[in-house]
Amino acid sequence: MSKKLPDRTNDFSGWYTQVVSRAGLADHGPVKGTMVIKPYGFQLWDNIKESFDAMIKATGHVNAYFPLFIPKSFLAREAEHVEGFAKECAVVTHTRLKADDDHGVVVDPESKLEEEIIVRPTSETVIWSMYKKWIQSYRDLPLLINQWANVVRWEMRTRLFLRTSEFLWQEGHTAHATAEEAQTETLDILELYRQLAEDYLAVPVFTGVKTDSEKFAGANKTYCIEAMMGDKRALQAGTSHNLGQNFAKAFDVTFQTKDNKEELVWATSWGVSTRLVGAVILTHGDQKGLRLPPRIAPIQVVIIPIFRNEEQEKAVKDYLLPLMEAMENSGIRAHQDWTDNSPGFKFNEWEMKGVPLRIEVGPRDVEKGNVVVARRDSGEKSFLSKEEAVEQIPKLLDDIQTGLFEQARQFRDENTHIVSTYDKFKKVIQKGGFVRCGWDGSEKTEATIKDQTKATIRCIPFDEHPDGLMCIFSGDPAKHEVIFAKAY
Amino acid sequence: MSKKLPDRTNDFSGWYTQVVSRAGLADHGPVKGTMVIKPYGFQLWDNIKESFDAMIKATGHVNAYFPLFIPKSFLAREAEHVEGFAKECAVVTHTRLKADDDHGVVVDPESKLEEEIIVRPTSETVIWSMYKKWIQSYRDLPLLINQWANVVRWEMRTRLFLRTSEFLWQEGHTAHATAEEAQTETLDILELYRQLAEDYLAVPVFTGVKTDSEKFAGANKTYCIEAMMGDKRALQAGTSHNLGQNFAKAFDVTFQTKDNKEELVWATSWGVSTRLVGAVILTHGDQKGLRLPPRIAPIQVVIIPIFRNEEQEKAVKDYLLPLMEAMENSGIRAHQDWTDNSPGFKFNEWEMKGVPLRIEVGPRDVEKGNVVVARRDSGEKSFLSKEEAVEQIPKLLDDIQTGLFEQARQFRDENTHIVSTYDKFKKVIQKGGFVRCGWDGSEKTEATIKDQTKATIRCIPFDEHPDGLMCIFSGDPAKHEVIFAKAY
Repeated sequence: MSKKLPDRTNDFSGWYTQVVSRAGLADHGPVKGTMVIKPYGFQLWDNIKESFDAMIKATGHVNAYFPLFIPKSFLAREAEHVEGFAKECAVVTHTRLKADDDHGVVVDPESKLEEEIIVRPTSETVIWSMYKKWIQSYRDLPLLINQWANVVRWEMRTRLFLRTSEFLWQEGHTAHATAEEAQTETLDILELYRQLAEDYLAVPVFTGVKTDSEKFAGANKTYCIEAMMGDKRALQAGTSHNLGQNFAKAFDVTFQTKDNKEELVWATSWGVSTRLVGAVILTHGDQKGLRLPPRIAPIQVVIIPIFRNEEQEKAVKDYLLPLMEAMENSGIRAHQDWTDNSPGFKFNEWEMKGVPLRIEVGPRDVEKGNVVVARRDSGEKSFLSKEEAVEQIPKLLDDIQTGLFEQARQFRDENTHIVSTYDKFKKVIQKGGFVRCGWDGSEKTEATIKDQTKATIRCIPFDEHPDGLMCIFSGDPAKHEVIFAKAY
Repeated sequence: MSKKLPDRTNDFSGWYTQVVSRAGLADHGPVKGTMVIKPYGFQLWDNIKESFDAMIKATGHVNAYFPLFIPKSFLAREAEHVEGFAKECAVVTHTRLKADDDHGVVVDPESKLEEEIIVRPTSETVIWSMYKKWIQSYRDLPLLINQWANVVRWEMRTRLFLRTSEFLWQEGHTAHATAEEAQTETLDILELYRQLAEDYLAVPVFTGVKTDSEKFAGANKTYCIEAMMGDKRALQAGTSHNLGQNFAKAFDVTFQTKDNKEELVWATSWGVSTRLVGAVILTHGDQKGLRLPPRIAPIQVVIIPIFRNEEQEKAVKDYLLPLMEAMENSGIRAHQDWTDNSPGFKFNEWEMKGVPLRIEVGPRDVEKGNVVVARRDSGEKSFLSKEEAVEQIPKLLDDIQTGLFEQARQFRDENTHIVSTYDKFKKVIQKGGFVRCGWDGSEKTEATIKDQTKATIRCIPFDEHPDGLMCIFSGDPAKHEVIFAKAY
């Protein structure tokens, strides 16, 4: 029943696949590369979603919904944009099926569309075609709109949550009167992403800017949060783009300024996706399965009743009532597991699902007025009186939240190396980990290093200190201090 | 600026189009038949969504997410199902674009898919293909899963919110061990739909069952809530289907019963969509625009400050602080309009947007400790002290909620006619309204009446009294008392 997970050290990828499946997070859909998000995984995503939604609403953003379908010609209007997405577009060409002679069903050739339709890989083009209608004057600016939606990017090599043909995300699309305002928005959102990752997901991130070769197709600058996963590889967890006037140009979106001039509008866009669920698994999971940060855990406390007969069952049930009520009043998400599996089975299952705290209550606990509280992060058990438990559970959850973050940060820092020779660089990259080093700013250097080591520049971190550094590859004076890593 | 709306009595359709546009609810997307839901309209939908989401969670349902893409062959597995949806399917056939010789962008013929993919028009097939994997034994049942998602049905004649090629909805898909349980679920959900419509949207509905010719493609029975719009036409506002074992058969989903037998699983599915936003507009709107039921209104109270100079502006601002705080503490969604438009312009705009209560505060009100409170439903104005306002606003909002419902119910009842001759029937249908009458149960009768009058049987209401009734068309003894109407 409780077959062991693949070894996390030797077979991280197999371990990940099993955790996603056995924790009940997701499954493969029938069309290759698609994902079914199961209820437990969806609740986790929903908690992440609601946390971020509250943040953007508090900063003046509003939600809207734009169509799934984009005319093919729209995608082509921004040259870099179409180049970036052309190779992964789901294209709708027909609108009807019909019965064929063998009583099967075929596409009706007469329903062919005049212009093919693209299933959105991202919504800049359709949104800027609308902004063209909505923006006339400076009074209409800024527009601070976000949408929660599904998008499709045809992928050949997929992995649940990390890379799927369809995924769920939010995409913010803002319009501004000045370049400065757009830049401020881009960075403000990046800071919200950092908070979401660190304060909610307990995932420490580096913040910085992408090199030109890694930026979003259509952006002037792409900023990102980059995290280290349990196998020391990097995961890009969120990006915020300053789009300059590129999409305003492509869709001819101008506005009348206060002094009656006609100017192009400035734009940003930014997104995080269901990939964040993958980041949580890959950052915090251990050999027993998931470990979830309490702030986003669907269930924060699971209660395992232990009993041998009906009398004991009733006694435990009654005993738990005030405890459940107290937790509900504190806004704690608690769940009692009264299924007829054995306690041992339940322990394993809820550990696999990463619930931060487990409470065990048996007849002897009822007698003595005690409960057993076990932490998922450390395995530590406390024997507490019921009153102490009520008082301490919120504190324990806070401890676990910060503990998971600290543990992940320590792991990342231990595996982030400052390196000054290319030999050392190659060794670290091969062993796994982040390398901070100098880069001469040349795309060729970047490409050569990628060819030779599979490592990419994850970002130019905001806290770079390039002065006096040499490029790790060319030996020339460094233009930037950058972070290299192999990435998901 | 505030051009009048088209006359609601003579040009209901033109009135609707203008209200949707001028209240800032929605816009047409670039692909024909698609809809952009603007922030104000989206917040309205989100409030409806959250109301219903709480209801289904309270009754043990959980949310999940299934893929947008369905293999063409899946759709064909259930014969009635594919017949029902074949003529309105968006079909994905290719996965790449490429540059052509004229520097344009064309679909890459080499990226043609082996099997075409359908963009989900509804998700029974993809979900039951997963249930096949998830359901083995009675212990796995019931499965009570819902998803909030976008679906696509290619429509030729579209109207914002009421009929669009892509729309947002929830679709519940449940799996049960017995026929009885599935039937109970089907009706329990219909009751939740009735509550959502009547208690939140203030839209009175008839509940009942569809005739076979009007049921969902693949269902054994379709139950519905049917509402009367302001032009006396019917709108199907929600449907709940008992699917029997049809999809279990199509996808070979069986389970082991407690006594070790292998049986097919029983199913239900049910949905409400962004069409509900259309129902709210069409039910409550008046010649000044929207009138929103307070429980789902994005803004429940709008405050219009009136001032002539900076001193007055500051006085009004300070005066409003405790009022805003009191409303926030009562969970009231209030908004102050400090834009530099004139008070008259603002009155019109917020009336167009249907905000239930307007508060006006000017320098004289500040002096006297008063506010002016105007109801959107009746136009009635009260002059209240600030303390009275704080106390009475929640009550006024409740009054408006029930008042809108009562007004709509009275309108519907006045326009629901019991008729006993076909001549009278045709006159009522032509003039507009619902007809309750006998029907002999024959599909031919139903089809002939539809041909001659464009009226359809909206439902066989639960409260039917067929005894002694004759069929309105054939004169034969009625099998059912039914409700006929022309419908959206």
